Amino acid sequence: MQRIDNFKSIIDRYEIIFFDAFGVLKNYEGLVPGIERTFEYLEKQGKEYYIVTNDASRSPAELAASYHKKGLTVIDPERIISSGMLTKEYLDLKVKDGIVAFLGTPESAHYIDNNGRHTLPVSEVTATNIDKVNALVFMDDEGFNWFEDINKAVNILRKRPIPAIVANTDYAYPLTANDIAVAIGGIANMVESIVGKEFIRFGKPDSQMFMFAYDMIRERRAISKKDIVMVGDTLFTDIMGGNKFGLDTVLVLSGNTLPGDAESNIHSTGIVPTYICHNAVVEDGGFGF
Amino acid sequence: MQRIDNFKSIIDRYEIIFFDAFGVLKNYEGLVPGIERTFEYLEKQGKEYYIVTNDASRSPAELAASYHKKGLTVIDPERIISSGMLTKEYLDLKVKDGIVAFLGTPESAHYIDNNGRHTLPVSEVTATNIDKVNALVFMDDEGFNWFEDINKAVNILRKRPIPAIVANTDYAYPLTANDIAVAIGGIANMVESIVGKEFIRFGKPDSQMFMFAYDMIRERRAISKKDIVMVGDTLFTDIMGGNKFGLDTVLVLSGNTLPGDAESNIHSTGIVPTYICHNAVVEDGGFGF
Amino acid sequence: MQRIDNFKSIIDRYEIIFFDAFGVLKNYEGLVPGIERTFEYLEKQGKEYYIVTNDASRSPAELAASYHKKGLTVIDPERIISSGMLTKEYLDLKVKDGIVAFLGTPESAHYIDNNGRHTLPVSEVTATNIDKVNALVFMDDEGFNWFEDINKAVNILRKRPIPAIVANTDYAYPLTANDIAVAIGGIANMVESIVGKEFIRFGKPDSQMFMFAYDMIRERRAISKKDIVMVGDTLFTDIMGGNKFGLDTVLVLSGNTLPGDAESNIHSTGIVPTYICHNAVVEDGGFGF
Amino acid sequence: MQRIDNFKSIIDRYEIIFFDAFGVLKNYEGLVPGIERTFEYLEKQGKEYYIVTNDASRSPAELAASYHKKGLTVIDPERIISSGMLTKEYLDLKVKDGIVAFLGTPESAHYIDNNGRHTLPVSEVTATNIDKVNALVFMDDEGFNWFEDINKAVNILRKRPIPAIVANTDYAYPLTANDIAVAIGGIANMVESIVGKEFIRFGKPDSQMFMFAYDMIRERRAISKKDIVMVGDTLFTDIMGGNKFGLDTVLVLSGNTLPGDAESNIHSTGIVPTYICHNAVVEDGGFGF
Repeated sequence: MQRIDNFKSIIDRYEIIFFDAFGVLKNYEGLVPGIERTFEYLEKQGKEYYIVTNDASRSPAELAASYHKKGLTVIDPERIISSGMLTKEYLDLKVKDGIVAFLGTPESAHYIDNNGRHTLPVSEVTATNIDKVNALVFMDDEGFNWFEDINKAVNILRKRPIPAIVANTDYAYPLTANDIAVAIGGIANMVESIVGKEFIRFGKPDSQMFMFAYDMIRERRAISKKDIVMVGDTLFTDIMGGNKFGLDTVLVLSGNTLPGDAESNIHSTGIVPTYICHNAVVEDGGFGF
Repeated sequence: MQRIDNFKSIIDRYEIIFFDAFGVLKNYEGLVPGIERTFEYLEKQGKEYYIVTNDASRSPAELAASYHKKGLTVIDPERIISSGMLTKEYLDLKVKDGIVAFLGTPESAHYIDNNGRHTLPVSEVTATNIDKVNALVFMDDEGFNWFEDINKAVNILRKRPIPAIVANTDYAYPLTANDIAVAIGGIANMVESIVGKEFIRFGKPDSQMFMFAYDMIRERRAISKKDIVMVGDTLFTDIMGGNKFGLDTVLVLSGNTLPGDAESNIHSTGIVPTYICHNAVVEDGGFGF
Repeated sequence: MQRIDNFKSIIDRYEIIFFDAFGVLKNYEGLVPGIERTFEYLEKQGKEYYIVTNDASRSPAELAASYHKKGLTVIDPERIISSGMLTKEYLDLKVKDGIVAFLGTPESAHYIDNNGRHTLPVSEVTATNIDKVNALVFMDDEGFNWFEDINKAVNILRKRPIPAIVANTDYAYPLTANDIAVAIGGIANMVESIVGKEFIRFGKPDSQMFMFAYDMIRERRAISKKDIVMVGDTLFTDIMGGNKFGLDTVLVLSGNTLPGDAESNIHSTGIVPTYICHNAVVEDGGFGF
Repeated sequence: MQRIDNFKSIIDRYEIIFFDAFGVLKNYEGLVPGIERTFEYLEKQGKEYYIVTNDASRSPAELAASYHKKGLTVIDPERIISSGMLTKEYLDLKVKDGIVAFLGTPESAHYIDNNGRHTLPVSEVTATNIDKVNALVFMDDEGFNWFEDINKAVNILRKRPIPAIVANTDYAYPLTANDIAVAIGGIANMVESIVGKEFIRFGKPDSQMFMFAYDMIRERRAISKKDIVMVGDTLFTDIMGGNKFGLDTVLVLSGNTLPGDAESNIHSTGIVPTYICHNAVVEDGGFGF
């Protein structure tokens, strides 16, 4: 039997907490019950916290607004680090002009737009403008016609020697208690194997996600990796990525990893969290599970 | 410089010729010019021939009819061995009753139907009939709504411990001179990596395709593998599969393998054809290139 | 709870039984206790049986002798189908002369020798004879210096456009109750990814293994796939391969698949055996649980 | 025809230059001829430079000494960022005590040693001390018995739920003009696929290499990614990694990428360098090619 740790006593030992979003703060039904108490406690104790999420479907402002609507009003846009933000940073540094073609919703593309460069749905790439396409971004699994636009993306990448960027590395995401949906990361893998090129991927477990958050903090104050703990529900992304970056990690059992599977999954993958907790909820009486 | 062999002098040395279809007999524009002379020559010489194709989109009868319409009237349905026929044989042996859900056109599914068992588009699988689904077959990339039905296929396979069969292993196929399209084999790979199960694949380079043809011949007469030559345009499927089965092989440069790339592709893949010819056309004057 | 079938009642329903070797007939300690009764029963009932094994380390005669030494004197060399035999058939058809370089023991290579062609350990390939090397075969994980000869094999394959054949597709094999050893199939995969070529693999789950056995039987008498059952301990090789070839399959829990894992492994892989039995032993009283 | 850029005029535009080592500064014969002039120029211009290398075989001090011995006396150990240093940082943060078992030479392991923790060759792990092994590191392809110790590493990882760290992600490295050797990254991939666990990899193209160098610089002064250019000979590691981190990149044709292949490799991989130069040598007369 594995040991279950007390979540409150863990966060007492760190100055900064990184949270994954889905499976930790919310699930397909809404907020994880009681999670607002965790943020009350963090505020009261003066702990710094960030949401580090493989979600490029919306801007941080829209992501924060969606927490507010669910009742978690404390979440600021500045607290949210998404793989979409890394995509934007990459484009700002490397693709100064021309068209960035994308697969995804208009919302997902809007915030990667900038002055010299503009975003265009793959469906609107034509023989006339294809020569101005300087990057293709896989943003979100919704907002386009899969049959038409996946085939079109394949042919754009065969014709143009441009980078292909995957703004969300997840293969699938939970839709309901029983069903999952193919995520844009899964579609990007299929296209990559067909065109035979190397795509650029942003999102956990890649270190660049953690580095982006780490850099944001260090712009304001000195900090060590020892002072940060990453809380996630998925061994392969949250725990693997946090471990590799040198952070302590908490696996919570409120999402992708079922309580009965945690021990055998850890043994079979070799991905070992520093702690295991039932969830990321700080209990009223201070009993964290 | 690589040596180019004379196609006519090659087929003179074998009793039985296996042809790939796309890139050898036909391309996106229609028949390969002059290919009808090859079949006239084969008929005159009393050579036996078969079309061995990763095409599960239609029955052999419909495939033969499509050659007739293009002007190659000599092709009999009995001469066509498709990966769809292996799928049918598998289902007949292993899935005796219930529903076979499929992704593809109605035509692609019709000929795998039988008495005890019936085929149903994935779109028509419901909470009511899902428990009767005993196999899921990836037949063709057309005839269904990609977004709806690929996601549905993922969830059927997560819920039911049933075999998933891929009736065409190709990842992509040529659509025009410049464009390709994602084939059902590419979609199947994406679904397989998401659900984490082992799919059953039929089609070259797998030996079972060649064995199926070889068995059909041996039902009528004794033959050795040394008497058969496989003609194809793709190193990875036609030549790899033919070689592994123990056949001599001819790479033709009228399809996937461009004349300028043949030598370097052979060296880099290690897939070595017995012969290389410009195409599979027997020239009038008997000069095969 | 999964249903456990009676092994004796299963074999009563088939004319021909295919057995995997390791984990079914023997393990690291010797014969599976009681397995000799199974063969007595098969002989008494006039059932035909074959051992279908991914073992290219020795010839069928030597493999049979090793069963005799263990006390299973009924096993004839003609009853043994090994991936090494497919390798020999391939070489006989496709590599008529020159040198076949190999990684493995002298015993593993001896029986793929023939008149026009001879086998040579990779360690004995030199600048003088490398141009005569017409194939490289991965036979066995023993009999060579890993550091010297794996590196040498890599460089032979980079210099010569020749087929590389893997005579045993297994990645690893059990050595003791607690330890495994890297098999030649694992080494071959590493070399393949480094040289970037496509290797030819023989061994379950590939259909060619089953076809080879099926052909041997049909040389003597008419038979249908429905009359054959494959018995194995490994879902990915024995059961996957048997299913795909169209055979009914029995998973036994005396080897790679632990009794407590069978159900979840079947569900997670989607590889579904027709039957599950504790082992391949026919009990004295006829109760074969 | 691709455009070839002038190396000197490129480095004039950046404040900081990152160099790959093998194929850029040195090759199997010694230093790249004329490379010392590049460093004289950098010193004269007051440019900052770093060597960013997937080499964990020795400490930065030993690596610097090897440049001095070759005649490039300007290279300081503080200028060298190796994947071995990331391995050390990981271990310092995440593996505080116990044994770190390793595959590699004693030199490769010495500098990852520290107070609470000590390194032990895999060959010296026994039934007595295995329970104290808290990590296994793949350091170098030399210094151990491949057959004995690779098999032992496999079994250690099957028994202990510990992280496996790959300190050099390269699959192979050039040994002479004609031969390559299997690198520890290739061996690690084989072991990973056999034990089925997720290994932690340090080295280009992973961002963490670049981040480590970037952080070292920022400890002393403010800098933007726009002021740095990465110079490398390998598309998949140097250019891919540099691009993804947001740096401008120079592909030099003095190592892995042959002049005649550059254009087609860039097109087929989709990995596009900002510049292409013959080599990283600043010419005497100021003409960089």
